[in-house]
Amino acid sequence: MASLQDIGVSAAINILTALAFLVAFAILRLQPINDRVYFPKWYLKGIRGSPTRSGPFVKQFVNLDCKTYIKFLNWMPAALKMPEPELIEHAGLDSTAFIRIYLLGLKIFVPITFLALVVLVPVNWTGKTLETIQNVTFSNIDKLSISNVPSGSARFWAHLVMAYVFTFWIFYILYNEYKIMANMRLHFLASENRRPDQFTVLVRNVPPDPDESVSEHVEHFFCVNHPDNYLTHQVVYNANKLAKLVEKKKSLHNWLTYYQNKYERNPTEKPMTKTGFMGLWGTKVDAVDYYSAEIEKLNQGEATEREKVISDPNAIVPAAFVSFKSRWGAAVCAQTQQSRNPTIWLTEWAPEPRDVYWANLAVPYFELTIRRLLMAITLFFLTFFFMIPIAFVQSLANIEGIERVLPFLKGLIEMPTVKSVIQGFLPGIALKIFLIILPSILMLMSKIEGYASLSSLERRSAAKYHLFVLVNVFLGSIITGTAFQQLKSFLNQAPTEIPKTVGVSIPMKATFFITYIMVDGWAGIAAEILRLVPLIIFHLKNTFLVKTEKDREQAMDPGCLDFATSEPRIQLYFLLGFVYCVVTPILLPFIVVFFAFALMVFRHQIINVYNQKYESGATFWPDVHRRLIIGMVISQLLLMGLLSTKNAAKSTPLLVVLPVLTIWFHIFCKGRFESAFVKFPLEDAMVKDTLERATEPNLNLKAYLQDAYVHPVFKGGDLDRPSVIDEEENNPLVPTKRNSNRSSKFGSGRSSDVEL
Amino acid sequence: MASLQDIGVSAAINILTALAFLVAFAILRLQPINDRVYFPKWYLKGIRGSPTRSGPFVKQFVNLDCKTYIKFLNWMPAALKMPEPELIEHAGLDSTAFIRIYLLGLKIFVPITFLALVVLVPVNWTGKTLETIQNVTFSNIDKLSISNVPSGSARFWAHLVMAYVFTFWIFYILYNEYKIMANMRLHFLASENRRPDQFTVLVRNVPPDPDESVSEHVEHFFCVNHPDNYLTHQVVYNANKLAKLVEKKKSLHNWLTYYQNKYERNPTEKPMTKTGFMGLWGTKVDAVDYYSAEIEKLNQGEATEREKVISDPNAIVPAAFVSFKSRWGAAVCAQTQQSRNPTIWLTEWAPEPRDVYWANLAVPYFELTIRRLLMAITLFFLTFFFMIPIAFVQSLANIEGIERVLPFLKGLIEMPTVKSVIQGFLPGIALKIFLIILPSILMLMSKIEGYASLSSLERRSAAKYHLFVLVNVFLGSIITGTAFQQLKSFLNQAPTEIPKTVGVSIPMKATFFITYIMVDGWAGIAAEILRLVPLIIFHLKNTFLVKTEKDREQAMDPGCLDFATSEPRIQLYFLLGFVYCVVTPILLPFIVVFFAFALMVFRHQIINVYNQKYESGATFWPDVHRRLIIGMVISQLLLMGLLSTKNAAKSTPLLVVLPVLTIWFHIFCKGRFESAFVKFPLEDAMVKDTLERATEPNLNLKAYLQDAYVHPVFKGGDLDRPSVIDEEENNPLVPTKRNSNRSSKFGSGRSSDVEL
Repeated sequence: MASLQDIGVSAAINILTALAFLVAFAILRLQPINDRVYFPKWYLKGIRGSPTRSGPFVKQFVNLDCKTYIKFLNWMPAALKMPEPELIEHAGLDSTAFIRIYLLGLKIFVPITFLALVVLVPVNWTGKTLETIQNVTFSNIDKLSISNVPSGSARFWAHLVMAYVFTFWIFYILYNEYKIMANMRLHFLASENRRPDQFTVLVRNVPPDPDESVSEHVEHFFCVNHPDNYLTHQVVYNANKLAKLVEKKKSLHNWLTYYQNKYERNPTEKPMTKTGFMGLWGTKVDAVDYYSAEIEKLNQGEATEREKVISDPNAIVPAAFVSFKSRWGAAVCAQTQQSRNPTIWLTEWAPEPRDVYWANLAVPYFELTIRRLLMAITLFFLTFFFMIPIAFVQSLANIEGIERVLPFLKGLIEMPTVKSVIQGFLPGIALKIFLIILPSILMLMSKIEGYASLSSLERRSAAKYHLFVLVNVFLGSIITGTAFQQLKSFLNQAPTEIPKTVGVSIPMKATFFITYIMVDGWAGIAAEILRLVPLIIFHLKNTFLVKTEKDREQAMDPGCLDFATSEPRIQLYFLLGFVYCVVTPILLPFIVVFFAFALMVFRHQIINVYNQKYESGATFWPDVHRRLIIGMVISQLLLMGLLSTKNAAKSTPLLVVLPVLTIWFHIFCKGRFESAFVKFPLEDAMVKDTLERATEPNLNLKAYLQDAYVHPVFKGGDLDRPSVIDEEENNPLVPTKRNSNRSSKFGSGRSSDVEL
Repeated sequence: MASLQDIGVSAAINILTALAFLVAFAILRLQPINDRVYFPKWYLKGIRGSPTRSGPFVKQFVNLDCKTYIKFLNWMPAALKMPEPELIEHAGLDSTAFIRIYLLGLKIFVPITFLALVVLVPVNWTGKTLETIQNVTFSNIDKLSISNVPSGSARFWAHLVMAYVFTFWIFYILYNEYKIMANMRLHFLASENRRPDQFTVLVRNVPPDPDESVSEHVEHFFCVNHPDNYLTHQVVYNANKLAKLVEKKKSLHNWLTYYQNKYERNPTEKPMTKTGFMGLWGTKVDAVDYYSAEIEKLNQGEATEREKVISDPNAIVPAAFVSFKSRWGAAVCAQTQQSRNPTIWLTEWAPEPRDVYWANLAVPYFELTIRRLLMAITLFFLTFFFMIPIAFVQSLANIEGIERVLPFLKGLIEMPTVKSVIQGFLPGIALKIFLIILPSILMLMSKIEGYASLSSLERRSAAKYHLFVLVNVFLGSIITGTAFQQLKSFLNQAPTEIPKTVGVSIPMKATFFITYIMVDGWAGIAAEILRLVPLIIFHLKNTFLVKTEKDREQAMDPGCLDFATSEPRIQLYFLLGFVYCVVTPILLPFIVVFFAFALMVFRHQIINVYNQKYESGATFWPDVHRRLIIGMVISQLLLMGLLSTKNAAKSTPLLVVLPVLTIWFHIFCKGRFESAFVKFPLEDAMVKDTLERATEPNLNLKAYLQDAYVHPVFKGGDLDRPSVIDEEENNPLVPTKRNSNRSSKFGSGRSSDVEL
């Protein structure tokens, strides 16, 4: 068990690391040459230009003004200065909502910390149980924890009362926060400028029709069933292959530029490359010529593919973006069921154009349910059995294995120093690699599940990652052993035994988690602000690829908030706070520091660095709320288990009330607020419509919406934009014989209505 | 353990009982005097009249035609003869769907029974384990069960394969049945005549407005937010007190008639009554005068109350029935969210007028969640701890207790025969009484939960009763001991142990359940057709209360299907079938006989007797489906537990697949079909609207809907129907200053739209 000294040393090391990162950041960010790494957001906004070319040459790259170095922490107040409405304006609601999670942590834990330190620490300290036990080593940390209270003591009433007080305080804060977020979102949606997604509904699973194309079918269906509201629609092309070609061309272009630059700088030597994989083997050729030819080839392939996509009716997927004359019409269509078969003509709010995940728009219902079943099973195995393949890889990745596969390294490996390094290093590397690629695996799984927008993909990935963190980091740290072993022991234990088993180990793991918070939390956040990887990549690109100012613009990688991995990690800190607030209150200050530090850092990053790929209007908040509730319930169950081993059995019935109340609170909040994140109320839609009709009576909405939902590969000045949809533009239901037959098929035939 | 002989004796007794009931029924139903008890449906339809008054006097009461007695079972083919579409027409979709549950039982279990008897019985029979064990008594029934297969035998593969075959067969049948029901419902809704609920939406939680009455507020809100569709609305009066007065008056009227009749038959003696409770004590008065005066008093009170309800604005509850110009408009409003606060302006499909539960229309959201929390906790305690108060009552209800409370009975009670009867009878009676009033308790709980329609109340009660039956009948019979003890032992057992504990006892309980099926199932169904209680009540009423033909009409009690208790009981038979189809297949024929018999009896009852109070269009089917799935999962888990104790551990992973598949199947079916029971697709609404507009272009819908949703106490020729809602009838938004202010409050102010 770690003593207070150990914790102190660990804290000192971590604080020094964090400080080192901060100092490095403070120095690096002041160099003009790094300006695009640390302030890309302002460049993208067009407010900040490249450092002035005037002045001494060196000043373009290095900041020589000593005064600026003195105030090296002045980014902190600056980060906190921007008021929230401006922040929403500047960085979007998603980012603002995300940093409010840290703020929420502060709101919850600052008063709890204060109360716990004032009330519970003295109660524990004067418990004096550990001192009487002779043969157990204990630290001062443990003296401050619930372990120091004698079994069956009346002192546990203090913990019980505090558990209630903390729970109600958290309820109060969570309720208010949900309310604020719901209002913020509705206000954001209401105050937003006109956006295509406000008028548009994504229609999936358009049923096949033998007589009509998808486009005609969609048009007729909505003309009949939403006669007063339907405006236009855009079909979705299966341009996935085309998108891949475009992507490949871009990469080849980069190589071409690289070799051209190389040649320019050193015209004496023609740069050569090999035609094989990654330029590693194959015949040697002139690089510039080779890549030019390759690009030319791709250009042709792309043109053919583009032609094919536009002309081939099979390239149109059975999905469409249907736009309406008013927000009201779109809100109605998105919230209602269209067909008697609920698996076709599925309508939902269209994600904003940037948010669409184009590859998933055409998954049939049956396939979708199968995919989700498979992914649920995969997730289960991934969470509980991921150690099995890793252990297998580890067993292969030993000295003998390497020697067998790569015999020419034998001499090198057999050297004693190298050998010991490899032996110490290899076993961990498989796990490390797995943990690094885990978010990508989870994202891939979410994509297979068939969600149609990037925001929902991120939310789904976050849910999966949360489960993984919960099982493998939280439970895995408390109960040593792999998740699989835990699962096995849980299955063979009584349900009432599980909280006891886990609960008993809780106080003993406090020091471990304190160290974890410092290493993963404090130092991790400090590393975040340094942006070491983007810094290196930018300078590499800047050196080898950048020719024009536009290239430099593209070399900039502002990055974005990675909701799918960051949010579940924050949840872990909340969970630790909930669990330890009653058990070992001394852990709380570390969490408070984490939240405060993270709030500042991420606020800075959001203002100066990140550029979100899409804006979903904080649709993730219900997920955050739900996971906080999960954390609360876990902590309450564990407290119950812990206290029941402490002969404080009388407290159990009182503690059972807490999870029941918490779940009720969740249901209450869900009913009260969740729909603000899912549905768009008709009242608000009507208000916006009316306002717009009054202020812009002559708006040509159709023209505005025409190109909004075109696959990105068709965007950017391509002339041959698909024009199928324009065919019947001005007469949605041409009153020819065929069309009236068609419309009567949908049961209407009242073409008069259509002309209204 | 019961031997085959015991079962045979039991079966004989039960078959004889059932036969006796059937013979009694066959005789009683042929007597003209009982005609209104056994064929009330036809009277209500107006097709059947009272037995002719001509002919010999005795013939009016007794059937003397011997030939009719010979064919005493001819109601059975008659009951099966009516084709399903006609049955829907005659008795409604609810009833038809209900008897399809029995049909579903036959569809599932007839092939399974055949297969199980052919495959599993020989496998079990030749297992020959029980014969080798000397000191265990066993019966022939056990020889046919899985107990007869030696531990670790390869024979278990047969059971495993059969478990898969049965599961997939059940999937196939359930899927088809769900599909048929969904189509049936949609077809029923589409082919129905015009009904008020097709155009109407129930709006709850209308927010209070300081300036406007509820009626005005509703009107303005929907004029603004559904300008093209809104037609009219009806406010809801809090007439609960008035309804009680009307109810009381009716009962007094009955007494008055009773005494009048008595006086008429025996004019020499004036009937007297006492004024106290139930006429048991108080001063003696002339009965006819007394009740006339009481009714007069009530009449006045009723008039005052009626006046008060109509004139007092506080008597209007914050809820309304809003009607639209088209089914499309109503479908849109019912499926969308109106306000940004999702707990106000809640819209849902209006139940049909007969189906409305008026007392629950005005429960605020917060109160609703609290009520549901409390009821959930109550249900938990009711299910697991109901034995505690009953044991308490039982401990009181002994000889000494009675002697203490009612000392004058002491002499009687002390007689040895009486004493022994009481001692044998009393302990059971508290439990019996509890079980009889349990459905009423559950219904009361559902009412407290605040559901607004009778159909949803019944569905909720059924869900509660299902839990009770599952825990206390099914589990309680398998594991002896109270539910509370079970709960305790479950909490202290590992999750994997529970299926084992229960699974092991399963084969041993087969004979018990066979007897149960015969007693509760066969004999119970036969008792159902006899209608003993309604028969007695009808004749009592007929003797004492009936004066006119209209009175006789009212004395008739056709009754109705009691979904809340019947459906969970059927589910128990399904569960028994699922559990025993692999374990003890010999139980299956008993279940098949039950389903076949019940199908016939209930088909007869639906055709000839029951008169449903409302028609919900089989909205309960998703519940039935879900509970069948629950039964399947339970049976699969128990089979897993049973086989794992049989050293057939290899089978466990294969069996785990089954519940996973079953749950996936449920999710799939839910997504595919459930919305047909919850939402009304716009496509269908549009088709019906268009059709109606073409066939009846001059329909005055407003007049049609005007009185549809008036509280029943205001119906029936009362002149003073509330007229508040007519005030602004022809100008929904009078363009006075006040109203335009009001509408701009909702953000519109475009009165032009309203005039469209």
